[in-house]
Amino acid sequence: MAKFTSKINYHLRGKEMVDYVADYLENIEKRQVYPDVEPGYLRSLIPEEAPLEAESYEDVVKDIERVIMPGVTHWHSPYFYAYFPTAHSFPAMLADMLCGAIGCIGFSWAASPACTELETVMLDWLGKMLKLPEDFLAGTEGSGGGVIQGTASEATLIALLAARSKIVKLIQTDHPDRSETDIISKLVAYSSDQAHSSVERAGLIGGVRMKKIPTDSKFSVRGAALQKVLEEDRAAGLIPFFFCATLGTTPSCAFDCITELGPICNAEKIWMHIDAAYAGSAFICPEFRPLLNGIEFADSFNFNPHKWLLVNFDCSAMWVKKRSDIIGAFKIEPLYLKHDHQESGNQSHWQIPLGRRFRSLKMWFVFRMYGLKGLQHVGLAKEFESLVKADQRFEISADVVLGLVCFRLKGSNELNEILLKRINSARKIHLVPCQLAGKFVLRFAVCARTTESRHVREAWSHISHLASELLQELRH
Amino acid sequence: MAKFTSKINYHLRGKEMVDYVADYLENIEKRQVYPDVEPGYLRSLIPEEAPLEAESYEDVVKDIERVIMPGVTHWHSPYFYAYFPTAHSFPAMLADMLCGAIGCIGFSWAASPACTELETVMLDWLGKMLKLPEDFLAGTEGSGGGVIQGTASEATLIALLAARSKIVKLIQTDHPDRSETDIISKLVAYSSDQAHSSVERAGLIGGVRMKKIPTDSKFSVRGAALQKVLEEDRAAGLIPFFFCATLGTTPSCAFDCITELGPICNAEKIWMHIDAAYAGSAFICPEFRPLLNGIEFADSFNFNPHKWLLVNFDCSAMWVKKRSDIIGAFKIEPLYLKHDHQESGNQSHWQIPLGRRFRSLKMWFVFRMYGLKGLQHVGLAKEFESLVKADQRFEISADVVLGLVCFRLKGSNELNEILLKRINSARKIHLVPCQLAGKFVLRFAVCARTTESRHVREAWSHISHLASELLQELRH
Repeated sequence: MAKFTSKINYHLRGKEMVDYVADYLENIEKRQVYPDVEPGYLRSLIPEEAPLEAESYEDVVKDIERVIMPGVTHWHSPYFYAYFPTAHSFPAMLADMLCGAIGCIGFSWAASPACTELETVMLDWLGKMLKLPEDFLAGTEGSGGGVIQGTASEATLIALLAARSKIVKLIQTDHPDRSETDIISKLVAYSSDQAHSSVERAGLIGGVRMKKIPTDSKFSVRGAALQKVLEEDRAAGLIPFFFCATLGTTPSCAFDCITELGPICNAEKIWMHIDAAYAGSAFICPEFRPLLNGIEFADSFNFNPHKWLLVNFDCSAMWVKKRSDIIGAFKIEPLYLKHDHQESGNQSHWQIPLGRRFRSLKMWFVFRMYGLKGLQHVGLAKEFESLVKADQRFEISADVVLGLVCFRLKGSNELNEILLKRINSARKIHLVPCQLAGKFVLRFAVCARTTESRHVREAWSHISHLASELLQELRH
Repeated sequence: MAKFTSKINYHLRGKEMVDYVADYLENIEKRQVYPDVEPGYLRSLIPEEAPLEAESYEDVVKDIERVIMPGVTHWHSPYFYAYFPTAHSFPAMLADMLCGAIGCIGFSWAASPACTELETVMLDWLGKMLKLPEDFLAGTEGSGGGVIQGTASEATLIALLAARSKIVKLIQTDHPDRSETDIISKLVAYSSDQAHSSVERAGLIGGVRMKKIPTDSKFSVRGAALQKVLEEDRAAGLIPFFFCATLGTTPSCAFDCITELGPICNAEKIWMHIDAAYAGSAFICPEFRPLLNGIEFADSFNFNPHKWLLVNFDCSAMWVKKRSDIIGAFKIEPLYLKHDHQESGNQSHWQIPLGRRFRSLKMWFVFRMYGLKGLQHVGLAKEFESLVKADQRFEISADVVLGLVCFRLKGSNELNEILLKRINSARKIHLVPCQLAGKFVLRFAVCARTTESRHVREAWSHISHLASELLQELRH
């Protein structure tokens, strides 16, 4: 609300920041991937209150290295193998600068037509890159279409809420006397026992029962397992209404068998949502597209270009077959949001927040400046897998399909917990664990855009060396 | 997932984009504030599919003026008076560049300690700027604290869900046999009949009844009005559990009387959430701080620095008195998110998405580069009000407290609808309407950081001229 113009010379300071940022990324390998700080480190480094008078830009910039960088986990370091990748590219960063400058809040078509329209078209572009069935595309006359959500958690929640609203309306059509709360109290949703924690959370938020379907030896939900639970639940008077399938689970990148599950869901009028948060990006490669077979049975589908498709966070792409299912669940329109082109769809009815940034610019820049062929690359995990396989002391804990290798020392969970602790304490690389069939497993996820074969080999020789030390100590 | 380095020279291209952005903002006044395009304009301007091969940066940049700008509503033009402002400043944009470069996903302390910690401290800084009661600050030992949400809609939803979870637990303590769904079916939440549409939406999502409390002649909810509804609802066997008060409503910037409402909510064990999305920024000025009196009765409080405090979208600040109330409603923690400093609070348990950007950098840059004094400015709306008041043909429709003036031509709604249509068709300035006590009203919100007195006077003379034309036509 300061009415005067900031004294910042953005031409000058912007360029200095560009150099800082480019230097940071070009030299990121030299920084320790995981910080040494202890909880609470930052508070003592800065004043307890905001300054009364303006400080100089120089003073602020100096503090980036003094206050911020010592506490940063460098996700784009080639030594970062934790969690899943988060996407990062110069084209996306350039587009984000433009997004910040335009600074529109796209909550309706009129609030910025370009923001609404580019998003619709970019989601069509991306849908075509994945060879999604025509039903999911908006085109000029389609009844489906895509939207950018902040995260896969929001996409799952939105799908569950849309499904909840749809089943309530459906039941009330036949039984107008049944109350919404009575129906909701009988609803039951399902997911894999390997599904991300956000799926369970969506159930909590939506106030519905959420059951986990047991997976097979490949950590995959099969049709028979779902069918069995459905029969039990129907017999108990419950109303199955939603199944969240996962393609590429967080622990081990396992794939639910949607070609079996889809027909069951369709026959039982259960909304099938597919969460392919991590794996989805790979489906633009012809060799991985078969993993998406069965998508034709889904009602909604989501994956995160912000994980593995070079579009900086946040950019989670979600498609639905029937836009009306989602819009109907949320639409409330006060006068101050009405405008002459009311019928021109805007995505704010498809999400939890009302306001939205101009995020499709990032997709547009990335898709054009890389081109589809420039994006179709998956590598390095297979190389790490073969290094692990060649070492008899280790075992691979799950099929390696994309960029994640789950592995462990043959032996106790405790042994592997110690190994992981030593790997992370050494600060050379950074990994996180998972639990698979009761076993404590190390996850090696190829993350940074700059990770090369030499980094992977270096990481393996480091892990192997720490394992030798550990095993030798135990022998004595 | 492309493994090779992009061929983009970011040192070079970044600087070109800085110049483009700075030029855009310095000359924004010359652009038509509202675009001329019709729905669907964009699709025909670009290919139907993403390119197979990479395109040059020059080609992409050329398309900004050809494809994007013709469809942009320029929110930062000094001729933009629609909705509410969205904040925008060079310090925030510089910080956002850094945020994009670090590109960490702050879903736990370990995922990037600086991201978690700077946010906690910045929310304390901002809380102190507003003179929030100590209870809402985290400090090193407090049980309250702040978090950055994406939007006020999310803050309201989170508060409602936390309140829902708390009341269910409370009732189940005394009645362990009552099911959650049974309790939820009896719950009732309240807000002003002037509250933002997102409040009603939060009720829909949370699956609870939401009732609107009628406001007085100043569009304000008073204690007696709430008390009356509470008594009726308790008598009908319902369980009141949540009241969302608004400070600065969207239609007219009215203020619910929280000094009356707070004690009632506390006595009745109803969670009081305060939504001050727009008005909150003004409370850093001593002369407006009295509007926040009564905050001491609230359980949670939210406002949007991204509206009126120079921090670019998204940055919605939310505080709670008891962190445990919110965390308890959502926390689910799988092994891949566990780490050695598990007890170090992270804000992902306070929100819908799991992932989060490093948004506190924007606050840090803005607070330091403006200083508190540099942020304490509210103006221009009073000037517009006096221009309206001096014209006998017009009337002011609601008290002017901050940066919004609600006004109309004395006469029918139809007359005012025509006037607004002509104002927006002329494309010189941009306004939106609202409905107040059945009347169609024009909203003049001072929005852009660059709006000066001369722009406001120019806007008024334009409106006044169009009104004269319209009234003259009607006379003939």
